[in-house]
Amino acid sequence: MRREVARLDKDNQEEVKEEIQDQAEIVEETEVDTLKNELNEMEDKFLRARAEIANMSNRFKNERELLVRYRSQDLGKKILPAMDNLERAMAIEVDDEQGASLKKGISMVHESLLHALKEEGIEEIPAVGEPFDPNLHQAVQTVPADEGVASDTIVEVLQKGYKLQDRVLRASMVVVAQ
Amino acid sequence: MRREVARLDKDNQEEVKEEIQDQAEIVEETEVDTLKNELNEMEDKFLRARAEIANMSNRFKNERELLVRYRSQDLGKKILPAMDNLERAMAIEVDDEQGASLKKGISMVHESLLHALKEEGIEEIPAVGEPFDPNLHQAVQTVPADEGVASDTIVEVLQKGYKLQDRVLRASMVVVAQ
Repeated sequence: MRREVARLDKDNQEEVKEEIQDQAEIVEETEVDTLKNELNEMEDKFLRARAEIANMSNRFKNERELLVRYRSQDLGKKILPAMDNLERAMAIEVDDEQGASLKKGISMVHESLLHALKEEGIEEIPAVGEPFDPNLHQAVQTVPADEGVASDTIVEVLQKGYKLQDRVLRASMVVVAQ
Repeated sequence: MRREVARLDKDNQEEVKEEIQDQAEIVEETEVDTLKNELNEMEDKFLRARAEIANMSNRFKNERELLVRYRSQDLGKKILPAMDNLERAMAIEVDDEQGASLKKGISMVHESLLHALKEEGIEEIPAVGEPFDPNLHQAVQTVPADEGVASDTIVEVLQKGYKLQDRVLRASMVVVAQ
């Protein structure tokens, strides 16, 4: 009888033990699972934030480079009519010392502006003798090509064009031989 | 006897139950604590990343504004000697039509450059009649103040100064009454 009780007792203990362990495991797993999910979500948010930081950094680096590269675009463009007028004045024939002195001054101003523009990456678009390129040149007139001159060659510039680095500020107005 | 066994059995069960629960709790707490710590750390990393995004965004915004605001600084500064030369040429006296025509051209170029500079936020620093300001003016000569002229008043400009928005591109070179 005693042994039987003990036997019952042991069986009972095992049963209770299992039951409690099961319960504890359920509780544990519920909280652990919840935490694991939250951790995964948070890690995901963190990784996305880090990716955004990298993207922002690249995007701004590119934007900054463009802003610096083309910074003189607006002022440069507005200076071009002055360059045209200076060149027109330089083409005027003079026959006295006063006129020659003024023309020398004009030439100096033109030279210094050309230098300033060049330092900022603004240069005249090559035209005369070049093949016509619709990205750089605007054809306002065509003439029959002389012998030995390839078709679509620019033979005269009516208004100089300028580019800032790879960007056209103003296309050259040209006469093209065809 | 049967009751006693049952009693013992019950006590024993309680004891086993408690022991198992304790163990389960220890296991549970260890994993839960670890997860909680990891979650806290990850949340901290995420919050710091988000703060960095906000900082970067503000910093870029400010930097971009400065780049745009002062974009014409370099080219503007390089144009100033041409402005001086144009003004010098405009001061030359002429006595024939040729000279007058050239001067008119020079005056037009000067006007168009002045307009271009102004549109980019570059303007002459007021000087004559203004009180001397070492942030804007450079005194190269002093003269005794005439009667009725306040001390430290600028009476003559030897070279015009220019500013881009709030930034001095070149200080005015001035004569100050003292």
